[in-house]
Amino acid sequence: MIELTDIAYVRSGVADLDKAVSFATEIVGLELVAPAAELLASGAPVARSAQLRADWRHHCLALLEGGSGVIASGFAVADEDALTAAETELELAGLTVSRGGAAEARERRVRSFIGFSDPFGNRIELVCQQEMITRPVAFSRPAGITEFGHLCLDAPDVHEAYRFWSSRFNARASDWIGDAACLIRIDPVHHKLAVFRGDGPGLCHMNFQVATIDDVFRSWHFLTERGVEIEMGPGRHPQSTAIFLYFLGPGGFTYEYSYGVRRIEDDAAWRPRTFDPDEPGSIDMWLGPTRKPTTQPQLGAA
Amino acid sequence: MIELTDIAYVRSGVADLDKAVSFATEIVGLELVAPAAELLASGAPVARSAQLRADWRHHCLALLEGGSGVIASGFAVADEDALTAAETELELAGLTVSRGGAAEARERRVRSFIGFSDPFGNRIELVCQQEMITRPVAFSRPAGITEFGHLCLDAPDVHEAYRFWSSRFNARASDWIGDAACLIRIDPVHHKLAVFRGDGPGLCHMNFQVATIDDVFRSWHFLTERGVEIEMGPGRHPQSTAIFLYFLGPGGFTYEYSYGVRRIEDDAAWRPRTFDPDEPGSIDMWLGPTRKPTTQPQLGAA
Amino acid sequence: MIELTDIAYVRSGVADLDKAVSFATEIVGLELVAPAAELLASGAPVARSAQLRADWRHHCLALLEGGSGVIASGFAVADEDALTAAETELELAGLTVSRGGAAEARERRVRSFIGFSDPFGNRIELVCQQEMITRPVAFSRPAGITEFGHLCLDAPDVHEAYRFWSSRFNARASDWIGDAACLIRIDPVHHKLAVFRGDGPGLCHMNFQVATIDDVFRSWHFLTERGVEIEMGPGRHPQSTAIFLYFLGPGGFTYEYSYGVRRIEDDAAWRPRTFDPDEPGSIDMWLGPTRKPTTQPQLGAA
Amino acid sequence: MIELTDIAYVRSGVADLDKAVSFATEIVGLELVAPAAELLASGAPVARSAQLRADWRHHCLALLEGGSGVIASGFAVADEDALTAAETELELAGLTVSRGGAAEARERRVRSFIGFSDPFGNRIELVCQQEMITRPVAFSRPAGITEFGHLCLDAPDVHEAYRFWSSRFNARASDWIGDAACLIRIDPVHHKLAVFRGDGPGLCHMNFQVATIDDVFRSWHFLTERGVEIEMGPGRHPQSTAIFLYFLGPGGFTYEYSYGVRRIEDDAAWRPRTFDPDEPGSIDMWLGPTRKPTTQPQLGAA
Amino acid sequence: MIELTDIAYVRSGVADLDKAVSFATEIVGLELVAPAAELLASGAPVARSAQLRADWRHHCLALLEGGSGVIASGFAVADEDALTAAETELELAGLTVSRGGAAEARERRVRSFIGFSDPFGNRIELVCQQEMITRPVAFSRPAGITEFGHLCLDAPDVHEAYRFWSSRFNARASDWIGDAACLIRIDPVHHKLAVFRGDGPGLCHMNFQVATIDDVFRSWHFLTERGVEIEMGPGRHPQSTAIFLYFLGPGGFTYEYSYGVRRIEDDAAWRPRTFDPDEPGSIDMWLGPTRKPTTQPQLGAA
Amino acid sequence: MIELTDIAYVRSGVADLDKAVSFATEIVGLELVAPAAELLASGAPVARSAQLRADWRHHCLALLEGGSGVIASGFAVADEDALTAAETELELAGLTVSRGGAAEARERRVRSFIGFSDPFGNRIELVCQQEMITRPVAFSRPAGITEFGHLCLDAPDVHEAYRFWSSRFNARASDWIGDAACLIRIDPVHHKLAVFRGDGPGLCHMNFQVATIDDVFRSWHFLTERGVEIEMGPGRHPQSTAIFLYFLGPGGFTYEYSYGVRRIEDDAAWRPRTFDPDEPGSIDMWLGPTRKPTTQPQLGAA
Repeated sequence: MIELTDIAYVRSGVADLDKAVSFATEIVGLELVAPAAELLASGAPVARSAQLRADWRHHCLALLEGGSGVIASGFAVADEDALTAAETELELAGLTVSRGGAAEARERRVRSFIGFSDPFGNRIELVCQQEMITRPVAFSRPAGITEFGHLCLDAPDVHEAYRFWSSRFNARASDWIGDAACLIRIDPVHHKLAVFRGDGPGLCHMNFQVATIDDVFRSWHFLTERGVEIEMGPGRHPQSTAIFLYFLGPGGFTYEYSYGVRRIEDDAAWRPRTFDPDEPGSIDMWLGPTRKPTTQPQLGAA
Repeated sequence: MIELTDIAYVRSGVADLDKAVSFATEIVGLELVAPAAELLASGAPVARSAQLRADWRHHCLALLEGGSGVIASGFAVADEDALTAAETELELAGLTVSRGGAAEARERRVRSFIGFSDPFGNRIELVCQQEMITRPVAFSRPAGITEFGHLCLDAPDVHEAYRFWSSRFNARASDWIGDAACLIRIDPVHHKLAVFRGDGPGLCHMNFQVATIDDVFRSWHFLTERGVEIEMGPGRHPQSTAIFLYFLGPGGFTYEYSYGVRRIEDDAAWRPRTFDPDEPGSIDMWLGPTRKPTTQPQLGAA
Repeated sequence: MIELTDIAYVRSGVADLDKAVSFATEIVGLELVAPAAELLASGAPVARSAQLRADWRHHCLALLEGGSGVIASGFAVADEDALTAAETELELAGLTVSRGGAAEARERRVRSFIGFSDPFGNRIELVCQQEMITRPVAFSRPAGITEFGHLCLDAPDVHEAYRFWSSRFNARASDWIGDAACLIRIDPVHHKLAVFRGDGPGLCHMNFQVATIDDVFRSWHFLTERGVEIEMGPGRHPQSTAIFLYFLGPGGFTYEYSYGVRRIEDDAAWRPRTFDPDEPGSIDMWLGPTRKPTTQPQLGAA
Repeated sequence: MIELTDIAYVRSGVADLDKAVSFATEIVGLELVAPAAELLASGAPVARSAQLRADWRHHCLALLEGGSGVIASGFAVADEDALTAAETELELAGLTVSRGGAAEARERRVRSFIGFSDPFGNRIELVCQQEMITRPVAFSRPAGITEFGHLCLDAPDVHEAYRFWSSRFNARASDWIGDAACLIRIDPVHHKLAVFRGDGPGLCHMNFQVATIDDVFRSWHFLTERGVEIEMGPGRHPQSTAIFLYFLGPGGFTYEYSYGVRRIEDDAAWRPRTFDPDEPGSIDMWLGPTRKPTTQPQLGAA
Repeated sequence: MIELTDIAYVRSGVADLDKAVSFATEIVGLELVAPAAELLASGAPVARSAQLRADWRHHCLALLEGGSGVIASGFAVADEDALTAAETELELAGLTVSRGGAAEARERRVRSFIGFSDPFGNRIELVCQQEMITRPVAFSRPAGITEFGHLCLDAPDVHEAYRFWSSRFNARASDWIGDAACLIRIDPVHHKLAVFRGDGPGLCHMNFQVATIDDVFRSWHFLTERGVEIEMGPGRHPQSTAIFLYFLGPGGFTYEYSYGVRRIEDDAAWRPRTFDPDEPGSIDMWLGPTRKPTTQPQLGAA
Repeated sequence: MIELTDIAYVRSGVADLDKAVSFATEIVGLELVAPAAELLASGAPVARSAQLRADWRHHCLALLEGGSGVIASGFAVADEDALTAAETELELAGLTVSRGGAAEARERRVRSFIGFSDPFGNRIELVCQQEMITRPVAFSRPAGITEFGHLCLDAPDVHEAYRFWSSRFNARASDWIGDAACLIRIDPVHHKLAVFRGDGPGLCHMNFQVATIDDVFRSWHFLTERGVEIEMGPGRHPQSTAIFLYFLGPGGFTYEYSYGVRRIEDDAAWRPRTFDPDEPGSIDMWLGPTRKPTTQPQLGAA
C-alpha cells in the first residue's frame, strides 16, 4: 500500500506558452514563479516553460511549450524511503516505472520522483520532498486563491479506475456519481483526486480553492466581462458542498475555483454515497445547467 | 416618538387578480390564505382580493383587484394605546390621519389601524394586534421562505425621507448609499424599511428572507427557466451582506428573495456608513450588473 | 461635546507628486485610487493630486501637488446633524469655522465637512458620511496593511492640547509620556490620535496597522534594502503594546507600520498611566535607540 | 467625593539609611532604583535617601535618612483636574492642605501632589500621574514579589477612621474585625488600605503581594535562617483569604508578604462582614498565635 | 530502537574558563551552579570547570578548561535498564561504546551514562536520571530564559545523519532545509536536535528558549550595546515559527535565544516539509540576511 | 504481572493500645470502628485490638496490642481469581506465600488474602474484596481527612526494592530522590507506595490526605499546642507537589497529613525525574529543615 500524502502538481503542454501564462496569471491570478531560463543550468537546449504558484508549493502548475495536452499529474509520498518502496510495489504489480533524473527532479523542485502510467494511460508522477516557499504568494489578481485543491483525471470506467487507486494507494471513495465519476480522498479533504468517465486519458480540470463565497462570484463577473468561457456554474456540488465555477483556458485546459469543500474528519465513519447523474441536482444542487468540463487529453497516449 | 415594533403587510392593487395570485403562489411560493369571498360577511359587493402568507402573520400581502399600484404599507405598533398616541402625535405634526373602520380592520386581520400619507405621498398604515397563525405555512413551492423581510418605498429625496422617519419614529439609518438609498432599522435587523430615490411615491420592492444560500440559487434557475424577469442578482449587498435576487411579478410588483441579512446586535456602537452608488461594488459587492428594481407606483398619488 | 466617531484622512502637500505617489504605492503599499484628472469634473484648473486607499475608506491619504507640508487632518462625526451641531459648538467656543463647498466635499468623498484650526495651528476637518468602498483593496505590495490606524499631531504643550481635545470632543487620555506625548482614544483603540510635543503645528506621523508581526519585520528588511530611512524601530511601545516601525517618506512625511495595538474594552476602568520619557524603555520597551520622528509642518501656519 | 484610583507609595524616615536599604533589597528583595545623589539636581544640600521598586511604579517606598518614623502615605487620583478638585474639597471640609512644589513632585516621580493630615494625624499625600517604568523589575532576590499590595495605618478609633475615609473618598469597608480593624477597598482588591486600632498615628505595615504560596513559605525559612523577627504567620486571614507573613525591618518598619488576596468583582453585591478579634481564627484562620504587628509612628505627630 | 526522552547537556572545552563563565552568566544570563573545586572530591588533580543552569536540570552546560571545542552532547534515556539496552544495541550496530565511571557520572549529575561517537565524529553521551533541582533558577540577568531548547550538530551529509538518528533512535524529521539541515524531534517540540551540513563534526549552536518575544528583542539591544557579535537575526524560522537570535560567545561557541517554537501535538499527522536553502525566506521568513552560525569543532575528532 | 488495584490497610502492633487509640482518634482524628470484643465471635482468647477508619474502607488501620512494630501492609487485587494467580506467581518466583484463614480474613474485613515477605523483610498482604462502608465517617475531630493516601516502607536499597515491585507488580517509579527514596504509583496518584532507604524493614509512615491547605496548617497548630512531635513540615514535596506535615504517634508510628498530591493522568507520557537528596529543596521545596521520619520496625524481622 502506497501512502499518498498530498497532491503535488500538474504538468501541461501548451502550444502558445505566452498566451497560457498570461491567462494563468492575469485571469486565473496565479504567481509566475520562474520563466524557462531559470529552470535548467545545463547547456542543453530546453523547451521554454513556466512554473506557477498558488500556495506553499514552489509551483503546482508547470506549463511547457510544445504540443497541447497534459503531461503528468504529480502526487507526494512521505520521503525517499517511501518513494523507493512505492517504486518496488508498482513494479511488482507489473507497471513500468521510470525513475526521474537529478536535473528533472530539480526542475520539478522535488528531491526525487518516479513516473508511470495508470492502466488507462494517465501519466502519474510520485515525488518526495516538494519544496515549500514561505514568502507570501504574489497573486497577479485578488482572486482569493488559497490552495491547489484537487485534480481530476478521465478514465473510461470509473469503477476500474477506483479499483486501481484503492488497491495500490491509500485512496478512499468519498462519493460516487453513478458511473460518471468517483470522488477520492487521500486526507480529510472530501476529494483531492476525482476520476470522471471519459473516452481516453486526460486531465478533466485542475481546481483551486478560494477563501470566500464572494471570491467565486466576483470571479464569475470578472471572467464573464473578459469573455472567458464559463463551462459550468456558479453552482454547488452536493457531494463536497463546494460552490464551484469551471472555466476554460487556452489549450483546452479547464480551471475550477471552488469554495467550501467538505472535510471528512471522521474517516472511519464516512460512508460513500451514490448520486444518479441523470437526477436533477446530482451535479449542481442549485439545479443549474450542467455539462462535463473540457478534458485536456494526455500527451503521448495512444 | 412613535415606536414601530415591526412591519405588518403590503396592500397592492392588481388588474388581473388571478394572474397575480398564480404568480404569488406558484412562482413566489406563498400560501394563499383566503380568496375574496371569505373576507367580508356583509352583503355589500366587494372587490375581489386575496391574502397571502409567508410566516406567522395571518397575511403579509393583500392583492386587491382593480387598478395596478401599491395601496398601502403596514407597520405595527405595540397596542391600542400606542396606536392612539401615534394618531395624536401625527396629527399634531400636521398630517391628516384617518382611523380605520371595524370591517376594514377585520379585513386586515388587525385590532385597529390608522392611515396617513408620508410627505412624499406613500400611503402608510399603522396597526395594532396583527393576527398570528400557528399552523405551518403551506407554501405552494419549496422556495425556502422564512419570513417577510422588509419593504422598500420610493421618495424623491432620501435624506428628507430619513428626516421624516427618524424624527417621528424609532427609525435609525443603518447605512447610506449616497443620495440613492437609506437603509433603516427598527429592530436588530439591518433594515426592515428602505427608502430609494424615485420620481414619485411607490413600493420599490417587497422582500422575503430565505433559509439558505441554496434557496436563492435554486430560485434563480427556477425563475429563469420559467421566463420570469430577473431584475438584479444573484448578488450580494455590502451593507446588509445579504445575498439577493430581485424579480418582477405581474403589475410591476418587484419581489426580492434574500439570505443572510446582517443583524446589528450592538445598536449603540453601530455607525452608519456611506457608499457611493457610482463606485463599483456599492450595490453588489460581487460586482455584477445592477439596476434599480421596478417600482409599483402609489395608487391615488397626485 | 462633539462626538468623533473615527479618523477619516490626512491631506498633505507634496512638491513632487509623482515621487510621493511612487513611495506611497511601491514602498508603503497603498492603492492609488484616483489620479487628479478624475477628481474634479469642473473646467477649472486644479492642482494635480492623488488619493490613496488602505482600507474601507475611499481614501485616507490625499497628496496634493504644491508646497510640502500637511494641509489638514480629517475626523468623522456621525451625520449631517452632528456636523451642524459641531459647527455651532466650535463657533460658540470662539473658533473660526468654515464650511466646505460641495465640490470640495465631493473631492474628499464625504457628504459635508467643516474646517478649523486647533489652538496650536493644526488644521482639522470634521466630516460626515465618508464613502466606503467594498471591493478588496488592491495593495501595490503585500505589506499586510489592514487599516489606517492613527494620526499624530504636534503641539508645543501636550497638556494644553489634551485640554482642548478633551473639553470639546469625546477624547480621553489613554496614557501620558510625561510632557512629551499624550495618547488619545475616541473608541476602544488605545489611540487614534496622538499629540507629541513639537515646536509648531504639524503632522508627526501617519500610522497604518498591519496584520501580523511578520509584516512589520518583512517591511523592515524591505525598506532597508531599498535605502528608505528607518526613523525608529523595530521596537515596541509599552503604552499600546504595538510593535512599531517608523520610516521617512518624501517631503518629510513619516509613515508608521504597527501591529498589535491594545484595545481598551472597559473604558470606565482604564486609568491613564504616565511614563517618564527619560526612563529607558518608556518609548521602546525593547530598549532600542529612540528619537522623535520627523514632523511635516502645517502648511499655512504662522 | 474624591476618587482614589490606587495606592502610590510610602515615605519613611530611617536613622540608618544603609542598613534599611540593605534590608529592603537583600532581605525583602526590592530593587534599589536610585540613591540620593540622583534624585535632586539642585545645589541645595539634601538628606540622603533611597527609592525602592516592586512593580510598574517608579518606586513605592522612599527611605529618607533622619529620624525613624513614617513620613507620608501616598494615594493616586486620576489626573491634574482631579487633584485640584480634591484640594478644594478637602479645604472646604476644613483640612489644611498643602500643594507640593515642582522639585518635590519630581522627587516623588509624580506630576503634582497635595498633602494633608487625616483627623488622627496620619500624613497623607494625593498624587497624579505617578511614573510607570516598563523594564522588568531587577529584584535583589527571588522573593516572588508581584506588586505593592496595600498599606495599613493606625488610628485610635477605626469606626471614626472609616467615617473619614468613606465620607471624603470612594472608600468602602470590605470587612470589620470588631473595633480592632477596618479593611477598606478602593478597587476590586479586598483592601488596599487598612486601619488598625492603635494609640497614635503611624504605619502599621506595608504589604507586598507574592506570586505563589511557595514564595510565602520559602521566605519564611529564608527570614528565619537570617534571624529576621517574624511577627506573625505564616497564617491566613479569613477576611481576604490571603496567606500572610509579617516581619520586622529596621526602624520598627513592618513588612508583609501575602498571597491570594480576594478580589471583589461584584462591588454592589458585597456585604462587609464582622469578625470578633477575640474569637479564635478571626485573625488567622489556621489558628496560629497572633499579635498586632509593630507600628512605625508618624513623624511629626504630636 | 533507543528511546531518547530528552536532551540533557552540552560539555564544551574552553581555553579561558573565566572569560567563558563571565559570558555565560553576565551576557547569556545563566546561573553558575558550581565552580570546579566542588565537583570532584577525589585527591586527583582535575581540570578547572564550571556548570551552568538554565532550568530544572542541575546543569545543561559544562565548561571545562583546556582546548577549545565541544566535548560531548548529552541525551537522556528513561532509566538504568534503558541505558543498558541502548549500550547493547549500539554495540551490536558496531559502534564502540564506553560506560562512564561513577565519579564521571557524579560529575555530570546523572546516575549512569555511556559514550560513543556518531558516524561523523560527534561525541554523544546517553544518560539516565539527570538530577532535577527545584529551587528557582538564579539567573544572572533577566534574559527571560525558560529552558535549554535544543542543540545542533554538524555533519557532512544531513541525509546520512538522519538515517543514523532515525534508524537507531526515536528520532523523526520534522522538516528539511534541502541538503543543508534536518530538524529532528524526539518529543512534541518541533526540534530538540538539528543537524546542519558542515565540514566536520562539531556543535553548531546551543539554544535557549525565552519566555516572550520581548526577551528576544531586549537581548538584541543588550548584546549589541555590549559589542557581542550577532550572527543572525532577529529573524523567524518558517519551519519552527520560532523568532531567533544567534550570537557568538568565547571559543567560537554559538548561543541562540528563541521564542515561540512550534509544538507538533499530532505526531502521526505531521508531514515533514522541504525548503530550498537558496529560496529567499527559507531560513528567515522575515527575509533578513542569513548565514550559517559558527560551529565549535568536536574536540579529538580526526 | 500482578495488578495491584489499591492500598488496603496497615496493621500495627502497639504496647499500649488505649494510648494508641486515643492518639489515632483524638489527635489524628480517625473514627474508631470497633473495639476488640466485637471482632471475633469464637471463644478463643484474642489479643485486644482496634480498627480505625478514614474513608470508604471498613478500616485502614488496625492496632493490635502486643509488641510495638508494624505487622503488615495490605494491598488489594481485583478478585479471588487475581488473588489465586498472584499466589501462584509469587510462589513460582521463589517467595513463601501463606494463605489467610477465614477468621483472619473476616477480621481484616476482606474476602480472602495471602501473605508474604518482600526481599527486605517487609510483611505484605494481598487481599480481595475489602469491605466498603457507606455511612459517613464519624471523624473524632475535624482534621479534614479525605482518605488513606499512601504508605511508605523502608528497604536498604531503594533500587533493589523498585526492581522487586516493578518486576512482579504494576508498579511504576514516579520519581526518584537519588538513592534515598523511590516514589511508586499503581494508579494516577503520584504515589500510593514509597520506599525509603532504611537499615531494616519497617513502616516509615502512613499518609492521610486532607481536603484543603487550611487543614494542614490548622493541624500544625493543633498538634504543636498539644505537644505532639512534628517530625517535618509544614513543607512541600517537589515530586508530588503535596503540602505535608509529618508527626510522631505512640510506638514510633509516624503519621502524615498531606494536601494536593499530583495526579499523573497521562501515564505513558510521564518521565520519572531524579532529585539529589543533598540539594536544598529536594525534599521540601520551601527549603525548610528536613529529616527522615521515624520508622516503625517490622515485627518478627530478623
